[in-house]
Amino acid sequence: VKIHSFTRKLQNEWRRLSLPETGGRVVAGVSGGADSMALWLALDELRGAGRLNVEIVVAHFNHGLREESAEDECFVARTAEQRGSAFVSGAGLVSRRGNLEQEARRARYAFLQTAAEAAGAAYLLTAHTLDDQAETVLLNLLRGAGPDGLSGMKPLRPLHNPSSLIPHPSSLILARPLLRWARRAETVDYCRARGLEPLRDAMNEDEGFARVRLRRSVLPLLSSFNGRIAEALGRTAELLQADQEVLQHAAAELLQKAAPETSSGAGLLRVDILRPAPEALRLRALRLWLEQGRGDLRRLELKHARAVERLLEEGRGGRVAELPGGAKVTRRRGALIFHAASKTEVEKGRAGG
Amino acid sequence: VKIHSFTRKLQNEWRRLSLPETGGRVVAGVSGGADSMALWLALDELRGAGRLNVEIVVAHFNHGLREESAEDECFVARTAEQRGSAFVSGAGLVSRRGNLEQEARRARYAFLQTAAEAAGAAYLLTAHTLDDQAETVLLNLLRGAGPDGLSGMKPLRPLHNPSSLIPHPSSLILARPLLRWARRAETVDYCRARGLEPLRDAMNEDEGFARVRLRRSVLPLLSSFNGRIAEALGRTAELLQADQEVLQHAAAELLQKAAPETSSGAGLLRVDILRPAPEALRLRALRLWLEQGRGDLRRLELKHARAVERLLEEGRGGRVAELPGGAKVTRRRGALIFHAASKTEVEKGRAGG
Repeated sequence: VKIHSFTRKLQNEWRRLSLPETGGRVVAGVSGGADSMALWLALDELRGAGRLNVEIVVAHFNHGLREESAEDECFVARTAEQRGSAFVSGAGLVSRRGNLEQEARRARYAFLQTAAEAAGAAYLLTAHTLDDQAETVLLNLLRGAGPDGLSGMKPLRPLHNPSSLIPHPSSLILARPLLRWARRAETVDYCRARGLEPLRDAMNEDEGFARVRLRRSVLPLLSSFNGRIAEALGRTAELLQADQEVLQHAAAELLQKAAPETSSGAGLLRVDILRPAPEALRLRALRLWLEQGRGDLRRLELKHARAVERLLEEGRGGRVAELPGGAKVTRRRGALIFHAASKTEVEKGRAGG
Repeated sequence: VKIHSFTRKLQNEWRRLSLPETGGRVVAGVSGGADSMALWLALDELRGAGRLNVEIVVAHFNHGLREESAEDECFVARTAEQRGSAFVSGAGLVSRRGNLEQEARRARYAFLQTAAEAAGAAYLLTAHTLDDQAETVLLNLLRGAGPDGLSGMKPLRPLHNPSSLIPHPSSLILARPLLRWARRAETVDYCRARGLEPLRDAMNEDEGFARVRLRRSVLPLLSSFNGRIAEALGRTAELLQADQEVLQHAAAELLQKAAPETSSGAGLLRVDILRPAPEALRLRALRLWLEQGRGDLRRLELKHARAVERLLEEGRGGRVAELPGGAKVTRRRGALIFHAASKTEVEKGRAGG
C-alpha cells in the first residue's frame, strides 16, 4: 500500500524514537488544528496500511476560552466517530489570572495526563512541529533564557513537572513525533490531501501573544537572512539538548559528592567540594540541590542561584540568600544549609503568586 | 580624582579580568570609531587619575578599502600625538575575493598581533561592546551555528587561530574589556563628554553586510519583545561559554582515552571507547581529533563530523568519510584512521578555496 510522503516521514521518526509499533494504546492530544489533525490522520493512515498496530485514543481539551470552543469539540468528536477512533474530551477551568497561555497549557497537560493514565497508555503524543520548536527557541532567547531554555522542546521526555531537573520515575512518556521535521504548512497540506479542512485556532491569530507576534514579524524577517531558519534553529536545539544531557549528568554527580547523605530533601552542601568545580557544573548542582529542598524550581531565577553561589565565597556578601517563596540558604562552617519556608511564608507566597 | 562613570565601569571590568595594573604595555586596536576611541580615552583617564600604570600603544590598521581610510589614519595619529600616546599603524592588502568582512578581519588581526609582539605587550585590547556580542550571537544563530558559535566572543582568549579547539601555548592574550557591559551609545556619549567626535565607519552603514542589516532591522524588532535584549543575549553567551569550557575539557579527556598514543598528528581512534560516549562529547572529541590530523578546522562543517561519526556504527554507511581539502577517515578493525590529504589535493583545495 502506497502511503503519503508526510506519513512516510512520520513513520521514519516513529522508528527513530523507538515508539511502539505493535500492541497497546497511545493517546494523542488533538485540538482540531492542522498540526494535531495531521498527526492523527497520518497515524490512522499507517494503521490502515498495516504498518502500525497501536490503538490511537484522541483526547481533546476544551479550555472554554472562546466562543467556538464547543464547536471545535464537536468537530473533533464527529471526525473521531467517522473514523472509528476512540475519543475522550475534558473541559477545564483556566484561571484568567497570571499568564493565560501558561495557565491554558497547564490545564491541558493535566487533562491529557489523566486521559493517558485512564487509557493505560504508555505514550502521550502532541503535534508540536519544527515551527513550534523554532518559535520556542527564539522566545526563550528573547526572554534571556539560559542554555536549557535555548535547547527547546525534546522529542521524548517523561511527563512530569516540566520545570523539574530531578528525574522522576514515570511510566508516561510525552512524545512529539513531528517536532524534528514537520513544517506547519506541510500539516495543512496533508490534512487537505486527506480531504479534511482543519480548524483555525483564534489564539494563533491573537497578537496579544508573544508567540504570535514572533511568528508574524520576527520569523519572516529572519528568513530573509536564512531561508531555512526553522531547520537551523531546530538543529541548534538538538545540539544544545545533547550538551545539556552531559552537563546535567555531571552536575548530579557533583551534587552527590557535595551532599552525599541526602536521601530526601536537601542535606548539608559541602563548600570545599562545590567551590572549586567549574561554574557551569556548580550552578547546575546548586539548582538541583535547591530543587531537592523546595520540591520544584518555580520562580527560581538565575539571580537566586547566583546569590546562593556567592555564599560559597568566603567573606563575600551576606551569610544568607533568600529564595522566592520564603525558603533560604545560610552558610555555617564550610557547609550550605537549606531552610524550608515556614508554613505562613508558603501561604503568603501562594497568595502573592 | 573623580572619574567618569564609563571609566569606573571599565576599571571594574579590568580588575575582574585580572588585566595588568602596573608596569608593561598593552596594545589597543583603534579604528577611530566611538568604541575604540572610548576604550582608549578611558584607559588614558585611568592613567591620568593614577589608577593605571600601564603604557597604552595605539595601533591603527588601514585596510585601504574606502576613500576616507587615509584621513581616518591621520585622525587617530593626530589624536595620539595630542595625547602623547605611542602610535603604530599598518596597511594591509585585503583580498576582495571571498568574504570581504572576514578578509578585512583576518588582515587586521594579523597586523595587531605583529604590533603587540613588536611592542612586547602581553595583551592586545579590542573595543568590542555588548552590542557587538549581541549581534555576533544572533548572526551565529541565524547561520545555524552550534553551541560554540552561540557562545559568542570571549572577554579573554589566547590570540591564535580562533577556529582552533586545541589550546596553543601563546604569550599574547586578546582582551575585550568592553564586551560584557558597554553599550555602543555609551561609547559615543563618553567620547563627546571627553570633547572628541569619533569617526563614523562607512562599513557600519553598508547594508550589504548581514551585521548591519541585523543591527538596523532585527535588533530593533527584538527590542519590542525585550527592552534589554543586548544584555539578555550577552548573559546567554556567558552561560554558554561556561558550558563549552566543561564540555571541551571532557571531550579532550575522552580523546585522550580513545587515542592515547598521539603525540603529534592524529593516531588511531578506538571505536569501542568513542561509540558509547554521549553524543555531545563524542562529536567534540571527533572534531578535536580531526583538527589534530588536519592542523585546523577550516571548512569542516557539522555534516563532515557526522559522516565520521557514522563510521563508528558497525555496518552503517560507507567505510570512508571524505573531508574538505582532501583528507579522509577510514575504519579498520575497531579503529578509525586519519589519512592526510596528498600534496596535490592540498594544492587543489587551496586553488579552490
